[in-house]
Amino acid sequence: MNYPLEDTIIALATPAGAGSISVIRISGENCFEITDTIFKGKAAPIKDCPSHTIHYGNILTQNDEVIDDVLVSIFKKPNSYTGEDVIEISSHGNQYIVNRIIQRFLDEKIRLAEPGEFTKRAFLNGKIDLAQAEAVADIINARTEASLKGARNQFDGILSSKIEVLRNQLLEISSLLELELDFAEEEIELMPLQTVKTKIEETISEIDSLLKTYSFGKIIRDGVNVALVGRPNVGKSSLLNYFLKEARAIVSDIPGTTRDIIREELVIDGILFRISDTAGLRSTEDAIEKEGVLRSKDEIRNADIVILMSDINNADDKSIVNELLELTDENRILHIINKIDLKPNYLLDKDIAVSVKKGIGISKLFDSLKEKVCSINTFSEKSAVVSNLRHYNSLIKTNECLTAALESVKNNMSEEYIAVDLRNAVSSLGEIIGKVTSEDILNNIFSKFCIGK
Amino acid sequence: MNYPLEDTIIALATPAGAGSISVIRISGENCFEITDTIFKGKAAPIKDCPSHTIHYGNILTQNDEVIDDVLVSIFKKPNSYTGEDVIEISSHGNQYIVNRIIQRFLDEKIRLAEPGEFTKRAFLNGKIDLAQAEAVADIINARTEASLKGARNQFDGILSSKIEVLRNQLLEISSLLELELDFAEEEIELMPLQTVKTKIEETISEIDSLLKTYSFGKIIRDGVNVALVGRPNVGKSSLLNYFLKEARAIVSDIPGTTRDIIREELVIDGILFRISDTAGLRSTEDAIEKEGVLRSKDEIRNADIVILMSDINNADDKSIVNELLELTDENRILHIINKIDLKPNYLLDKDIAVSVKKGIGISKLFDSLKEKVCSINTFSEKSAVVSNLRHYNSLIKTNECLTAALESVKNNMSEEYIAVDLRNAVSSLGEIIGKVTSEDILNNIFSKFCIGK
Repeated sequence: MNYPLEDTIIALATPAGAGSISVIRISGENCFEITDTIFKGKAAPIKDCPSHTIHYGNILTQNDEVIDDVLVSIFKKPNSYTGEDVIEISSHGNQYIVNRIIQRFLDEKIRLAEPGEFTKRAFLNGKIDLAQAEAVADIINARTEASLKGARNQFDGILSSKIEVLRNQLLEISSLLELELDFAEEEIELMPLQTVKTKIEETISEIDSLLKTYSFGKIIRDGVNVALVGRPNVGKSSLLNYFLKEARAIVSDIPGTTRDIIREELVIDGILFRISDTAGLRSTEDAIEKEGVLRSKDEIRNADIVILMSDINNADDKSIVNELLELTDENRILHIINKIDLKPNYLLDKDIAVSVKKGIGISKLFDSLKEKVCSINTFSEKSAVVSNLRHYNSLIKTNECLTAALESVKNNMSEEYIAVDLRNAVSSLGEIIGKVTSEDILNNIFSKFCIGK
Repeated sequence: MNYPLEDTIIALATPAGAGSISVIRISGENCFEITDTIFKGKAAPIKDCPSHTIHYGNILTQNDEVIDDVLVSIFKKPNSYTGEDVIEISSHGNQYIVNRIIQRFLDEKIRLAEPGEFTKRAFLNGKIDLAQAEAVADIINARTEASLKGARNQFDGILSSKIEVLRNQLLEISSLLELELDFAEEEIELMPLQTVKTKIEETISEIDSLLKTYSFGKIIRDGVNVALVGRPNVGKSSLLNYFLKEARAIVSDIPGTTRDIIREELVIDGILFRISDTAGLRSTEDAIEKEGVLRSKDEIRNADIVILMSDINNADDKSIVNELLELTDENRILHIINKIDLKPNYLLDKDIAVSVKKGIGISKLFDSLKEKVCSINTFSEKSAVVSNLRHYNSLIKTNECLTAALESVKNNMSEEYIAVDLRNAVSSLGEIIGKVTSEDILNNIFSKFCIGK
């Protein structure tokens, strides 16, 4: 549902529940005027107070009974989160009081905000672009140092600036081509086709580089999925326990974990690793076990890294390796040999030898895990990283359009064709930062926010 | 444990969890100075900014990396909640970010606040008295209109002013008596003993009136305990369900409900009724059932109101009535006769006839429930009400001292005895508002607060 932007909206901005204080946020045209009818403080009417000042007073019922004594913070447009006039009310942290205050405002022709509507207004009022708005949700959901850095990077507009530059380049070429088309009879060449070709190729290459950051960007945003595979009693549970004990920060279990698969989360050097102990791959006729094997296979297919753990007495585990290769790439597999304490002189080529029991080789295993997620050390806070599937898909679409344009150039097609493809590429890039948006895209993005943001 | 008041303290002030924003509160001597080393905004240093202003900027790590962009609110002493210099930091509502910001401050010789420590400082710095400080906790815990009104009444100092007046009266008498003792040889009579006697009697009577408000004060603060008693199949569960459907606001179940006793909460006219369906009173040899009967008896003993429900075919239920009279006062019992639809012409004296099935007589039952909690309509926001057991006990102790003083007057004892009893009475009254406090009393009160308040 879409309401007009003229509405004044209200929502609880702090988490629900009991605490010392709660903050209620109000944004829109009438928020000062309405607050002045409900709030009585010592100071002048809210509308006459300066922006960024705080005022103590009471929120009153229609019969002038005190609901709560509160602090009211004033933010005058455009210097507010939404770019509109904003009030923040800091009340006692009691859900009953919060509900009564919100209800009091709802009686005065203010309505409840939809999820993400404050941030949506910040976007619509030009305070932030769409990629930055999406970064706000990522900041709120960040659980590790890496995910927070990634989200802040995007919020600070590093990706947006890069997209903006690429979009302007393409816009320039397409404008020139369109201008030539307008003066087609005069056969003016504003930009030689060879230059057009070079510029498109350069852009494709730059977008390819951005696309390559996605697997890393996804990892810093969402964490690394690791599937732990191996025969029964090879030491998988011991390794999981060891991980959890060693990891510097432990994150709680994710809700909704399937019963068949044990999933633990740990943080190594600021990166979230989500490790699942899969049920196994053995062929079976039992219906329930079959379901478990199917889930394990899914787990392996979706894993960024597969740790195969073998017993030193059956170190090559050929049959399992072959099964894994049907489900994932070889370079995603990390083969480790456990119980090395039983054969201390055993020599290995490329595999990692550990003894979970004795704590041997685990730090090398940590290093190998980090190596597998590669570019961690090369991640700079100043370089653009794509971490959002929506952005990734728009970049793919952009390069498809550019490749089509390039084909047209190579095949000496009419400039009209080239211009249309370039326009589509510009539009795909624009989707990322919200230069071009449909109501559907906006609703899809902001409905995932919490109410009050 | 008690820390010196010179410490600067920090805590999350909003409920824990995910939300749009979280607020972290810092109070104490060094809070501006330390914030200036961690927070970088566009404005002047915090210490040079005016009180009650808000500033946007970044919270930085020791390596100048951005942890979060925040709003900082400044409250300069004495115009703050604690009466000290206070900073409130409004960050993104993410527990990971909140923890990192708090940790950043803890690195700078700020320590975590103990539960209730901000309010304790408000008391120690003379911003509020002890009864008002206790009202802050009641405001945060209020769940109904009546409990909120009662807590606000106490927070606004209605009870405190009344106590202050009584205390000053007693202080005056005892000072005069003590003065007379100092000049005992000169036999000056500053206040005739008859006047002393009258004044003490008046005070005892006023404190008695206050004590009488306690049963009501307790009810508005904590709700009314109602035990529902009756033979099996008499319609108790149907009545509970009907209540829950009819009540304007339903409050969730209390945690920790015993399995034997079903307990439901509902709000009628702003008062919380906590209704328990007791297992029954029948004599039994079965060990588990015996335990159930014991719990039912406790439930009835503790109930403010006992609803006895009888079937119209066994309306007098004499044996149950007799059992109840052993456990509670007659005037606490509300006898209702159910299934009146079966005998529409049945006449009743004082009992209430209902048909839960047909919805007959329930509004009369609601009225009777409200009548039983009596003075609801006479509760004025301007009159002092005692709702806290600690205050009640101090008032009882005061009257004991005053009664002893009165005895001494009547028995023509030396004025020394009278003066000592009066001093003790003054001190007992002073405990309520915190004129006299031991560290134990303070710790006991504030340890029940949440951290951050």
